[in-house]
Amino acid sequence: MERVSNAMCFGGSQGVYTHHSSATGTPMTFQVFIPEHRTNQTLPVLWYLSGLTCTHANAMEKGHYQRACAEHGVALIGPDTSPRGDDVPDDESYDFGKGAGFYVDATREPWKANFQMRSYIERELPELIADEFPMLDMNRQGITGHSMGGHGALTISLRNPGRFRSTSAFAPIVSPISCPWGEKALGGYLGNDIVAWQQYDACALIKNGARLPDLLVDQGRADQFLEEQLKTHLLEEACRKAGIPHTIRLHEGYDHSYFFISTFIADHVAWHAERLKA
Amino acid sequence: MERVSNAMCFGGSQGVYTHHSSATGTPMTFQVFIPEHRTNQTLPVLWYLSGLTCTHANAMEKGHYQRACAEHGVALIGPDTSPRGDDVPDDESYDFGKGAGFYVDATREPWKANFQMRSYIERELPELIADEFPMLDMNRQGITGHSMGGHGALTISLRNPGRFRSTSAFAPIVSPISCPWGEKALGGYLGNDIVAWQQYDACALIKNGARLPDLLVDQGRADQFLEEQLKTHLLEEACRKAGIPHTIRLHEGYDHSYFFISTFIADHVAWHAERLKA
Repeated sequence: MERVSNAMCFGGSQGVYTHHSSATGTPMTFQVFIPEHRTNQTLPVLWYLSGLTCTHANAMEKGHYQRACAEHGVALIGPDTSPRGDDVPDDESYDFGKGAGFYVDATREPWKANFQMRSYIERELPELIADEFPMLDMNRQGITGHSMGGHGALTISLRNPGRFRSTSAFAPIVSPISCPWGEKALGGYLGNDIVAWQQYDACALIKNGARLPDLLVDQGRADQFLEEQLKTHLLEEACRKAGIPHTIRLHEGYDHSYFFISTFIADHVAWHAERLKA
Repeated sequence: MERVSNAMCFGGSQGVYTHHSSATGTPMTFQVFIPEHRTNQTLPVLWYLSGLTCTHANAMEKGHYQRACAEHGVALIGPDTSPRGDDVPDDESYDFGKGAGFYVDATREPWKANFQMRSYIERELPELIADEFPMLDMNRQGITGHSMGGHGALTISLRNPGRFRSTSAFAPIVSPISCPWGEKALGGYLGNDIVAWQQYDACALIKNGARLPDLLVDQGRADQFLEEQLKTHLLEEACRKAGIPHTIRLHEGYDHSYFFISTFIADHVAWHAERLKA
């Protein structure tokens, strides 16, 4: 692992790192914010998964989480959304290929060699983080994300019961099975194996018995993707039927941008901190 | 004037606008954050001038001022740093030409036709803002900026006594006459007219009698440009000799980036708000 850059921010350290990933067969870049802490103090960890077209950098620059993370003593990790590099296959559209890994392990050619983002985020990167950042307490992890990354946060948490003490999302894709973005990505990476698709669909996972202790979701009512792609009401319905305690907040006037995320991210950090420090 | 985009952020409105500038002879883009307010309420205005290579967008995305501006009820305006367009002359280096207007009115060819950033920021844009945004109270203006924009904020405020109730800067170039960035820009835009240079040098303006009621400056000690370009100590010395009350804070470990600015911008907004709402 190599440090690409580091800057002090709100008394903590905003770093960017790169390493070779065995899951994706490529270099991968991620960012870590580590708040100021005492020697030998360990810090809870919040994962932030980004949306379509993003790299590790969008949330780091536009997410405005550093103040809240410093205040609550919570570290934040932000991975990239796909493998990168000239040898990695791509698609000309913004919602498939590079920048659109969808947090799945692809099974189809030509994607399966590199697009192993589920394995990378669920297994490889947490192991690397545990090895390289001894001040991070991997027994106290929370997870959040935006849009495609909200989908990633929900499904990874639902598939790994007990690993995350807290789960939240901003404007998540709640059911890729039921929207054009998801149909294109799951079809492209997994083919027509609809059973496999269900592992990557938060609503399907809940219907099939997966549970969370509770859930916080923020969603803008002026989000241009709400009706066709995000379909927040499907998650509300799944949680209600499954008896999962959920706080789903709909905000008048807010869109899908980082201006929306930055407005509410301090609420999410506080919500995670309460559960991670309990 | 045309609205390019608008997003709700911290209950306020983060807009981007474009208009034809008679000063620069080009379209110009600027951003305005207007906090939530009552009908007929007027809001004080804080100008934020950006540094080398920046457009209107850097501070809007990375500055993290929206929360503090919403809390204090202060609007913020962020202009571009130079004229833009295929017909505008440029230089291959990052510190001259496009993205590097230096807030001067150029007198040399080929720059003088478009690089009239002093007139644009001091005269044309405030008139447009006053016309187009009736909720903004142009009798309560403050000004700040970063690096080259800190130089802009200091010199514009010093040259227009009484216009700004409050002046601050992040890592400003305090004396362009005395550093490579400034020598290159002033020489390129103004030629060898050293008397003209003095209008664009905060320390020279103070030595020549210009005054401010007080001043807040934040500067990182790990700023890679501190020693060669910024030379904060020259401003401290000029203020001390002139009896200008000044708060110049040096921060261990902080660099020149927006991670530094975002850490301290809430302090600046509060400092301006106190003076603008007095």
